[in-house]
Amino acid sequence: MIPPTHPRYRSLLEREKIVEGAREGYVALQGLIAQGRGECFDYLIGEETQPFAQRAIEAAAAALLAARRPVISVNGNVAALAPGDVVRLAKAVPALIEVNLFYRTREREKKIAEILRRHGAEEVLGVGEDAACTIPELFSERRRVSCRGIYTADVVLVPLEDGDRTEALRKMGKTVIAIDLNPLSRTARAASITIVDNVTRALPRLVEAVENLKKDRSQIQDILARYNNSAVLAEALLHIKTRLEKIASEML
Amino acid sequence: MIPPTHPRYRSLLEREKIVEGAREGYVALQGLIAQGRGECFDYLIGEETQPFAQRAIEAAAAALLAARRPVISVNGNVAALAPGDVVRLAKAVPALIEVNLFYRTREREKKIAEILRRHGAEEVLGVGEDAACTIPELFSERRRVSCRGIYTADVVLVPLEDGDRTEALRKMGKTVIAIDLNPLSRTARAASITIVDNVTRALPRLVEAVENLKKDRSQIQDILARYNNSAVLAEALLHIKTRLEKIASEML
Repeated sequence: MIPPTHPRYRSLLEREKIVEGAREGYVALQGLIAQGRGECFDYLIGEETQPFAQRAIEAAAAALLAARRPVISVNGNVAALAPGDVVRLAKAVPALIEVNLFYRTREREKKIAEILRRHGAEEVLGVGEDAACTIPELFSERRRVSCRGIYTADVVLVPLEDGDRTEALRKMGKTVIAIDLNPLSRTARAASITIVDNVTRALPRLVEAVENLKKDRSQIQDILARYNNSAVLAEALLHIKTRLEKIASEML
Repeated sequence: MIPPTHPRYRSLLEREKIVEGAREGYVALQGLIAQGRGECFDYLIGEETQPFAQRAIEAAAAALLAARRPVISVNGNVAALAPGDVVRLAKAVPALIEVNLFYRTREREKKIAEILRRHGAEEVLGVGEDAACTIPELFSERRRVSCRGIYTADVVLVPLEDGDRTEALRKMGKTVIAIDLNPLSRTARAASITIVDNVTRALPRLVEAVENLKKDRSQIQDILARYNNSAVLAEALLHIKTRLEKIASEML
């Protein structure tokens, strides 16, 4: 039991959820390592949603609402950390939900789909025979996606995705929205819209942004036209740099 | 199979070793998360041993050689990443080796001791009934240590240790040498000597430093008197800050 007064309460709670997901067999062991990397970058950005992330969240909401076929990709870590937010977002847009695993096994697919259904998802793509289409330029199980989902999507939200796959989806001409705490990762650089934030903070804000923008859709094209992902990434890096300077000067 | 030409070859290989250790049951799931945090900080320091780490390594060699009862603490991650280096270091000093786990189970203790013996260790403390002494101020299984080892040690090397335990060992009056990639961690701040480096790079260098210093022991007291851990930590932070500035400016 972690006391809620612990300075790292939220971070420790997320860690517990991921470990629990690994024990239940749907979070990959590599997903635990990815969580650790994320913790480090979250610490560096200050464990709060920063203005550059909020701008990306608003652009992401606009892209999802402007899409013809928006799809939300879900892996083990996302299912462990924010299953309810994924379902709420899918309903708000509306968007399809697809299980999309780097280390794909039938057991993991099924468990993740089950978790999403338990949180209210009606349909979950990418399970078993449904993942019959392949992304060009990728190898083995990593290239399999649903023909009705990511394969034909025009906008894909990939919270916590790897660089190869993000690049491959971009080469297919899709708009890719990534949520990645590391502004230097290949995923962050390859995505069309990069939300540099913790998925557990970003997804509820994205639901809120979608709800707000639905009330006045006339802003959608403006938001997309104004959005500059390189500027957002540069701002994230400068923010980390400034924070480190401050931490360093306090220590000296 | 990871090709040796892969830009992240070394980092990916270490990741594989840790995942394998988790599959074999001696690396804790939380150890995978810790590895991920380490990867992030290693990336930030540039994945090379920096001058501030080398200075700490030399001080660590001096402290180990000056000790009456030096002990090397080994957890699952260390056993997965650098078992041979631990044994080489123990023989060079000479120092005792003790299994010391945050998530202690008899099975994990035994597996880690077995790995160390396979790499040439003669005696491994801290297994089963041997871990009968308790560190004050700590709770549950985390406080158990060997009465002949960490409990009575004057100098303890803790590669990859948590903050609570490092602080408790310091309060017991021990000299604590930590290897920690995060110069901001509580472990890094609480230790007497903090080697801000990857354990897989630091341990072979520490063996080398011990071998060199054994040839001229007259330097030991000088090295210890000159050493300033706060200055080393501040230098590590400034190094990361400068690296981030460079990365940020290349992106802009």
